Amino acid sequence: MIILKSDVNTPLYIQIYEQLKEEIMNGSMPAGSKLPSTRNLAKTLAVGRNTVENAYLQLTSEGYVESKQGSGFIIQNVTAVNDLNKKSQYDLRDEESKVPEEKIMNPQVYNFQYGHLSGEDFPLRLWKKVSNKAITSLTADDMTRYSYPKGEYELRNEVKAYLRKSRGVLCDEEQIIICAGFEYALTLLCQLFRGDLNQIALEEPGYFGARQIFCNNGYEVLPISVEQDGLNLTSLEECPAKIVYVTPSHQFPTGAVMPIQKRVRLLEWAQRKECMIIEDDYDSEIRYNSRPIPSINSIAANGNVIYIGTMSKALSPSLRISYLVLPKKLMEKYAQRFEIYQSPVAVIQQRMLTLFMKLGYWESHLRKICNANKRKYDSLIHGITQYMGDQVIIHGKNAGLHILLESKQGLSESDMIEKAKAYGVLVYPVSVFWMNKSNYLDNMVLLGFGNLSEEEILQGIKEFSKALRI
Amino acid sequence: MIILKSDVNTPLYIQIYEQLKEEIMNGSMPAGSKLPSTRNLAKTLAVGRNTVENAYLQLTSEGYVESKQGSGFIIQNVTAVNDLNKKSQYDLRDEESKVPEEKIMNPQVYNFQYGHLSGEDFPLRLWKKVSNKAITSLTADDMTRYSYPKGEYELRNEVKAYLRKSRGVLCDEEQIIICAGFEYALTLLCQLFRGDLNQIALEEPGYFGARQIFCNNGYEVLPISVEQDGLNLTSLEECPAKIVYVTPSHQFPTGAVMPIQKRVRLLEWAQRKECMIIEDDYDSEIRYNSRPIPSINSIAANGNVIYIGTMSKALSPSLRISYLVLPKKLMEKYAQRFEIYQSPVAVIQQRMLTLFMKLGYWESHLRKICNANKRKYDSLIHGITQYMGDQVIIHGKNAGLHILLESKQGLSESDMIEKAKAYGVLVYPVSVFWMNKSNYLDNMVLLGFGNLSEEEILQGIKEFSKALRI
Repeated sequence: MIILKSDVNTPLYIQIYEQLKEEIMNGSMPAGSKLPSTRNLAKTLAVGRNTVENAYLQLTSEGYVESKQGSGFIIQNVTAVNDLNKKSQYDLRDEESKVPEEKIMNPQVYNFQYGHLSGEDFPLRLWKKVSNKAITSLTADDMTRYSYPKGEYELRNEVKAYLRKSRGVLCDEEQIIICAGFEYALTLLCQLFRGDLNQIALEEPGYFGARQIFCNNGYEVLPISVEQDGLNLTSLEECPAKIVYVTPSHQFPTGAVMPIQKRVRLLEWAQRKECMIIEDDYDSEIRYNSRPIPSINSIAANGNVIYIGTMSKALSPSLRISYLVLPKKLMEKYAQRFEIYQSPVAVIQQRMLTLFMKLGYWESHLRKICNANKRKYDSLIHGITQYMGDQVIIHGKNAGLHILLESKQGLSESDMIEKAKAYGVLVYPVSVFWMNKSNYLDNMVLLGFGNLSEEEILQGIKEFSKALRI
Repeated sequence: MIILKSDVNTPLYIQIYEQLKEEIMNGSMPAGSKLPSTRNLAKTLAVGRNTVENAYLQLTSEGYVESKQGSGFIIQNVTAVNDLNKKSQYDLRDEESKVPEEKIMNPQVYNFQYGHLSGEDFPLRLWKKVSNKAITSLTADDMTRYSYPKGEYELRNEVKAYLRKSRGVLCDEEQIIICAGFEYALTLLCQLFRGDLNQIALEEPGYFGARQIFCNNGYEVLPISVEQDGLNLTSLEECPAKIVYVTPSHQFPTGAVMPIQKRVRLLEWAQRKECMIIEDDYDSEIRYNSRPIPSINSIAANGNVIYIGTMSKALSPSLRISYLVLPKKLMEKYAQRFEIYQSPVAVIQQRMLTLFMKLGYWESHLRKICNANKRKYDSLIHGITQYMGDQVIIHGKNAGLHILLESKQGLSESDMIEKAKAYGVLVYPVSVFWMNKSNYLDNMVLLGFGNLSEEEILQGIKEFSKALRI
């Protein structure tokens, strides 16, 4: 029996459809029987025949009834649907008892986490200014087309000029691919090399994120040890991998800088063996005791170097914009493999960043954060020297947003982390950067300082020293 | 000989560094010789000794000189750098002669391209309103943290409510992953299944984009033919693949709708064989002659179905937001594999969409575009009937933003495309959707109509009929 609700939001034909469907599902209208004729039902319900026809059409297109020429609408067997429904009953209790993951808050702590930046250093006023400009200029067309697959031309043009000036990277816009963060960029490369190569050499210790991405993409990861001046090239020569992932300007996590001679030898290796170098220049902007080290790419443009940069370390991790610079020799393959791939970054987002760079805010911001981070770094070193003295060794000076702290007291990594936690100080493991944990001396922790103020850094180190009873 | 420029923008130490570097590179300062002492050079240049020390530090950290205790700074051999530089000379001519790809404009045409939407249908005023709201509420913290890896909680909450109401998908926020478009979503799934599975069944004909992504990710793609009512399940039973990618609500490109019985059989196949179904519900919002067909996922929540939806077809392709709904049984594996993966979508972008949905604009927009597309569709059908009569057959009615047009005159796909082009009408190949081209009768073209007005559609079809001399 169909009763129409006086629900103005649901079209009449859907109300009819839903009630008929329910009767079919609960067996009130058994399989094999017929729906009433559209004319009769329309009369009974005092609705247009069209409305009933629409309801029947919907039931037909979903397979609940079948329309047979001359004999009307025959109800189909749907017991299997009911059975399946029961089997996979959705458990609502699960849902109600749950606190969303991000609602769980930490108590006030000194969090030396790497990756997040300090809100104080973000140019909020300028960013809102360019955002508003970008939104004012937004047209409906901007929203209803795809971005260019490699990203908006204007943004690639800005990135090109910046890379040329600051990193010595010579390329044209066609070689630049705007990506939605590091994972996206590396996954794209994994897809680019698939079939040709299946092993990749990685720094040991090295960024475990890169390792996870390569593993998830089916590559065998071969560790190459890192020395005071970066990657061990003798080990690389012996390694069968034809691609190497390196962070030459500021090795992650050790902070080692690869000197020019070694960079040249690395490039020679790549040319001689026809190998590729993935140069991750993740925090080149953040150097405060010396100029940025020129990129490997700048020594041999369009050679065997793929360059990766990001906006996450110097500007904003929540912006989710990184970029790849591919050598010209890879462009044809790129075009073939990614024919249907659209840019993963919203047009409006790209336009905001373009304006930010075009108006000169990016350059002035870089100067500002280098100074800010120099002050933070000085606080950190000052704090460590003052409170911890010669009980520790600092690794990875002069750049970036993190250091490694080695204990000379024989404390293990987990000792230090646990003791610190009891004093409200969060420091981070270094063991995760080793594939082969037995090569790690288990005597260091990582301290990021991008997210803390100078005062918090000093206080945090003071508490940390108490925790370690120095 | 060092001459300091009166360039206030370049710090003194960098001017010194650059000139010394140049002299080392061009051989004026040969390898093995020493840099002048910092005291002497400071005196000569009338600058602070600190400044010279900074320049020397930079040269040292880049490897151009080596600092030896007691014997000063020794210049290193850099001829290899020069050699490499010459070999890979960047060709500037390349760059100047180039017109950026996107500057090349088409003359005025009737472009029946699939994918782009019509600017007229975009709710520009409302979108700017929520954008401004989102930017006003933006804090520096929003910009200096990462989004939650699965995406902002509030957006997932809105997507959950929408999916429950409109698509019958029952899930909680933890199962929803906000993705940067379709390629990102599918690539994530490829990484999730890597190692366990290496074959995937795809509809034939089917979306070649999906095929390219699976191939790029190293999966073997096995074609399963599509019938009037969707995927051929008998072929699927015989297929060794343990995952199938399907578009059951509106098969792409044929437009076939899979009836409820077949959906149940597909689910039973997945349960019995412990297989996974990837349900791509790409244009479910755009149905104008009947209600949206309930998703497969709605029949068996948390079973063996991964659901993919997108904002590209109904709202904006340039927004680059899509989403995955994973069944609960996959959540643990997801957490393991993607431990370090950050959300690829900017926080601000997610917040704009959240507001758009929360304020009810999304629902009213959906009603509006269904009506608008119904009118366009009617124009298309009207135009085809009027101008092409019984010379063609229309495939894939009642939903979406495209149809397939079959020639009854014996014209091939390329015939139709070429003839149309001569009349300023762009229609698109269907052959690309077949893996095995010999199964394709070569008698169809694809016409998308999302990007054209009713009037343009009518005019375009009129020109197309002239082109085909109907």
